[in-house]
Amino acid sequence: MHQTYNAAMEINLLHANQEGADHNRAHFDEWGITCLNIMSSPGAGKTVLLEKTLATLQDKLSIAVIEGDMTTELDANRLRQYNVPVIPINTGRSCHLDSKMVAGGIHTLQQKYNPNNIDLVLVENVGNLVCPAEFEVGEHAKVALLSVTEGEDKPLKYPVMFQQADCLLITKIDLVPYLNIDLERIVSNVRQINPDVTIFSVSATTEVGLDLWFYWLSTQVKHRKYTSSCF
Amino acid sequence: MHQTYNAAMEINLLHANQEGADHNRAHFDEWGITCLNIMSSPGAGKTVLLEKTLATLQDKLSIAVIEGDMTTELDANRLRQYNVPVIPINTGRSCHLDSKMVAGGIHTLQQKYNPNNIDLVLVENVGNLVCPAEFEVGEHAKVALLSVTEGEDKPLKYPVMFQQADCLLITKIDLVPYLNIDLERIVSNVRQINPDVTIFSVSATTEVGLDLWFYWLSTQVKHRKYTSSCF
Repeated sequence: MHQTYNAAMEINLLHANQEGADHNRAHFDEWGITCLNIMSSPGAGKTVLLEKTLATLQDKLSIAVIEGDMTTELDANRLRQYNVPVIPINTGRSCHLDSKMVAGGIHTLQQKYNPNNIDLVLVENVGNLVCPAEFEVGEHAKVALLSVTEGEDKPLKYPVMFQQADCLLITKIDLVPYLNIDLERIVSNVRQINPDVTIFSVSATTEVGLDLWFYWLSTQVKHRKYTSSCF
Repeated sequence: MHQTYNAAMEINLLHANQEGADHNRAHFDEWGITCLNIMSSPGAGKTVLLEKTLATLQDKLSIAVIEGDMTTELDANRLRQYNVPVIPINTGRSCHLDSKMVAGGIHTLQQKYNPNNIDLVLVENVGNLVCPAEFEVGEHAKVALLSVTEGEDKPLKYPVMFQQADCLLITKIDLVPYLNIDLERIVSNVRQINPDVTIFSVSATTEVGLDLWFYWLSTQVKHRKYTSSCF
């Protein structure tokens, strides 16, 4: 959030974004879609988490991805290999997705696919631990990732993201033995900011903890159109 | 950079910031101070780099730090242990320092210390790989850090930071053996975006590569007031 424009402008900006987010969510609700907003610093592992999620759940849930990236389609191309709808949004110089950009993604979803057949839309935000937390895009829940390599103090230093998160994945825990870091300290710093957030410790490399993430994800999906009793 | 306000507003915002940055730089020039803007994602190792730099160079250069953080003084407190002037700036909800905030820091520097006795001001920006690259604060050079844990593709995905950087430190290289990552690929991706940037590979843990960083830093200091022939 830029401080160099005045408070009234900031309120208008967030208000307009919130209206757009509510409109997007109304579409998702109409189609029975659950939408999650996935956020973290660059390189915390959002895309590999989506890869693992699509590989494991795509036979059980009908999933689409809205993929936010500043300029490239590198992440979108990685996810297209899983044969699910992947809608790329290039944000240009913007450091986050906003509800207007995601509305464009929803329009594409509606034009190219049948949204009534989709259970879950995963929105991968731009890698940034600050602004994405302030701009709702129409999600039903916010998922934040924090890599153990980022350090124990980040929940305290970037509190808005951790306050807003409904679910936090502490990622790359396979690297803990090689770092001077205390996983318990990370968790207690998160709890200090947000006592209620659901926390999972995971590694995409060893796949430790991912089963709990998949289970949590399944509990978020309100209208499961294609699932058998797979969970 | 937020896209939801219009282009004219954006141009005004950047123009006003640039004017402020030029004003700050004029102050630094008047006092014979070299100013560097240190930027990266959260947790790439900016603060530990500053700790190592202060520990090694504080007897050779007169250094002050302007420490940008959203809400806490955690980093400022780490650096105060080195008995150098540390001026904290809390950005609140802002995802980057701007020239107006740093002007406040310069004012404090002027009030509490004698800026004519300072060789080097290191500005540690808010952890964010996007917006800080667009908001000059009055620096003479930009230093970016990229941790190997963030992945090979980040220079391509967040190009503005890598285009703008005069010096790039690839950090945490002691972790390379535990990652599925190619250091050469990181370097070639950076070169694709910015052929001229000076690149060092370093580890604050093993201290590999830091001597080259210290040497580069010393070459940036234009008016060395207290140095003997230490470099």
